[in-house]
Amino acid sequence: MSSDPKAGLTLGTREPNLKSRHDIRCLAENVLEREPMTARIVDVETIDVRFPTSRELDGSDAMNEAPDYSAGYVVLHVEGADGNAPPVGEGHGFTFTCGRGTDLAVAAARAIGERAIGFEVADVVHDLGGFARHLAADSQLRWLGPDKGSIHLGTAAVVNAAWDLAAKRARAPVWKLLADMTPQQIVDLVDWRYLTDVLTPDAALRMLERQVPGRAERERRIRSDGYPAYTTSAGWLGYDDAKLARLCGEAIDDGWDSIKLKAGANLDDDIRRCRIVREIIGPDRRLMIDANQTLGVPEAVRWAEALAEFNIWWFEEPTSPDDILGHAAIADKIAPVKVATGEHAHNAVMFKQFLAADAIGICQIDACRLAGVNEAVAALLLAAAHEVPVCPHAGGVGLCELVQHLSIFDYIAVSGSLENRVIEYVDHLHEHFVDPVRVRGSHYLAPHGPGFSSEMHRDTLRRFRFPDGAAWQEVA
Amino acid sequence: MSSDPKAGLTLGTREPNLKSRHDIRCLAENVLEREPMTARIVDVETIDVRFPTSRELDGSDAMNEAPDYSAGYVVLHVEGADGNAPPVGEGHGFTFTCGRGTDLAVAAARAIGERAIGFEVADVVHDLGGFARHLAADSQLRWLGPDKGSIHLGTAAVVNAAWDLAAKRARAPVWKLLADMTPQQIVDLVDWRYLTDVLTPDAALRMLERQVPGRAERERRIRSDGYPAYTTSAGWLGYDDAKLARLCGEAIDDGWDSIKLKAGANLDDDIRRCRIVREIIGPDRRLMIDANQTLGVPEAVRWAEALAEFNIWWFEEPTSPDDILGHAAIADKIAPVKVATGEHAHNAVMFKQFLAADAIGICQIDACRLAGVNEAVAALLLAAAHEVPVCPHAGGVGLCELVQHLSIFDYIAVSGSLENRVIEYVDHLHEHFVDPVRVRGSHYLAPHGPGFSSEMHRDTLRRFRFPDGAAWQEVA
Repeated sequence: MSSDPKAGLTLGTREPNLKSRHDIRCLAENVLEREPMTARIVDVETIDVRFPTSRELDGSDAMNEAPDYSAGYVVLHVEGADGNAPPVGEGHGFTFTCGRGTDLAVAAARAIGERAIGFEVADVVHDLGGFARHLAADSQLRWLGPDKGSIHLGTAAVVNAAWDLAAKRARAPVWKLLADMTPQQIVDLVDWRYLTDVLTPDAALRMLERQVPGRAERERRIRSDGYPAYTTSAGWLGYDDAKLARLCGEAIDDGWDSIKLKAGANLDDDIRRCRIVREIIGPDRRLMIDANQTLGVPEAVRWAEALAEFNIWWFEEPTSPDDILGHAAIADKIAPVKVATGEHAHNAVMFKQFLAADAIGICQIDACRLAGVNEAVAALLLAAAHEVPVCPHAGGVGLCELVQHLSIFDYIAVSGSLENRVIEYVDHLHEHFVDPVRVRGSHYLAPHGPGFSSEMHRDTLRRFRFPDGAAWQEVA
Repeated sequence: MSSDPKAGLTLGTREPNLKSRHDIRCLAENVLEREPMTARIVDVETIDVRFPTSRELDGSDAMNEAPDYSAGYVVLHVEGADGNAPPVGEGHGFTFTCGRGTDLAVAAARAIGERAIGFEVADVVHDLGGFARHLAADSQLRWLGPDKGSIHLGTAAVVNAAWDLAAKRARAPVWKLLADMTPQQIVDLVDWRYLTDVLTPDAALRMLERQVPGRAERERRIRSDGYPAYTTSAGWLGYDDAKLARLCGEAIDDGWDSIKLKAGANLDDDIRRCRIVREIIGPDRRLMIDANQTLGVPEAVRWAEALAEFNIWWFEEPTSPDDILGHAAIADKIAPVKVATGEHAHNAVMFKQFLAADAIGICQIDACRLAGVNEAVAALLLAAAHEVPVCPHAGGVGLCELVQHLSIFDYIAVSGSLENRVIEYVDHLHEHFVDPVRVRGSHYLAPHGPGFSSEMHRDTLRRFRFPDGAAWQEVA
């Protein structure tokens, strides 16, 4: 990040020599007083937003019995102007959570977000890589991870809010902001410290340069056809057989040709449910199963063998999301069924290893568990270098809104391919977003509004704020 | 855990069907009303305790420039009696943190700790494995990890408090409580879900049974000689050369024969510092270096090669603590220097892989980053099965107090060996503990007080409570 000698302010990628939130605020106020016309981040607003989804068992799976889809929500507030008119006053971002514990993600986002206060918006926009590295570089907060758990979720929320701010300022959706960057600008987004043994910045640069000539044509194709998707809405574990069958039939009628089923709690149930689904969707549509980490390595292999007759495309989260070698062993044994994981892979170092070990055939990044756009870009580069398709995790609340940007960027500028690539789609809670996803005929249409599609309606933020929003008062 | 049909209460290893903290409290109160004479956990007290250590650069290293050693502290409160006289009213535990963010660890400990309320102490003591699994099994909180980050640190604090409670109730130190368990009881402490591809409960049982005949002799030896240790107190990165040299000389005078030096920020500095230390300690004492995760894989290899002339015993945390394959590559290239890591390895699945991949020659468990005693036992079993010595991470605040119990248990009942095994020792902050470590002639003396040595003085808890304790008022 830039230094600003006029204000006596140096906010570098190393932690500034500030002792407390109080010091940061004083410093920010001091700066603002001296340069009132410079657009700066002056405040971070954090909100604990929860939706009482557990009452319907939407989103139920073998590990997550009854989630209340939630968000640790962040608004970066900007004051001042810098020739960017009309001024962009807010950047919205969040990390996805499952109910209890959202307060931890919110507290983490606040602690990380305070590190953003005082930054010039122009500096943030021009060095989103340096800004993201600065956010994560507090050595005391880092101990809580490092680069994982609540503090990483909070970092994701703030980084994503900064991308929303940057894209709104550029009057472009995030995917377009990314896809118009030069290969070097893209490489500079990434923290390479732990990645170079598997992918160097130079190799990434050459890979990105090879895709430059085809960018325009792929952008045209995405704008006209959208990006392919699959649905998980039919197959939640809490649904009974009749509801499962009905929803599968409806999904086919709606044009879906790839359907994912939650599994992993009981093998007999899974065999029965796969049979129901396969009969309804026929032999040619794709069926995926998702065990949500419930199995050990030997059990996962048994599970896949028992379900082999149903022609499973991928077996998702068969075991612990930390078990790189375990996934590699499973992948080796259950081929040609592909092993998919990544929604709980917490950072680029994990993806580096999953890919280098041939442990995954499908790479499932999460836009809010990785530390926001920057680390997601690292994962996209690593996956492309290993020629493994990225099929992002979505659903929850707002994940569809975010990952569409990442996948479209991946297609235009990184992998250059749609082969075996589908974005997860779940039709929950989109009504709460200012710029919700638009899905037609099993494709995400390219978002054209400025920003990251991450902004919720103010009324939603008020109504579902936990525990005092009206929606929660009604539940109580 | 047991079910209690009289009270209509079933607290199983699966999450009970409770919706909120309110429900849990009502249920606990309900139970207590019906059975006033049964000792139950009725409350969890959490305290944010921080020590302003950053002012002296004690504890400074290449990643942690200025930590304020801190603890997310937990007291489990018991009411009622069950024939255990005098009644044990409290169990104390904590997780170690570095200052900012301790509030997150405390909030996590509170969220997890509330899952302990209502349990009969007798049930906890008789099934510490089931109790620990129950604490970690909240599917909504799990999303924040899983099994890592703040929520895992909070779980560690509560599990460790339960062990303190159990050991005080048994009038024994934790190491003795563990060392007197049968092999089957030890195996039952562990959550085996993700471990069986590398170590089965049966194999662990046989390994433990082989050590039973020698237990008494090893216990006698530990009681007489103590457990070997090494010191890190001389080598903090923030100390200048003169202070480093002086402290190394003093360490030798005090009988230390293994000394660890912080490194990893600047190679020229490290060469100079290693030369100073090696000259002072002579050719025969052991020298270890610790890069605290600052390097990439290729840089770590270069570093080790440049320091080879100083005869380094182990190279600690050369790179990202998540990089199993990276550590394996480093270990392969820098042998016979051993790669050491684990203080940031967040769960048993990580240790399983580090060991299976021959990535570490020294296994450094942390008693507060792993989810307390139970997961530490899993790591001890995995390390013993791979014949890799465990040299626990200590220092910070209270880590020495905790890990001595784990290492002594390891020697008596698991590995049966002291070869190449040393516990880290740092002489900070022990005065705040009711039953502090006692180190004589580079050995930890076996603690003989009941409990986990985890209890801080009430005056310390008041004085260093952040931000309102007197010590922090003075700093402000």
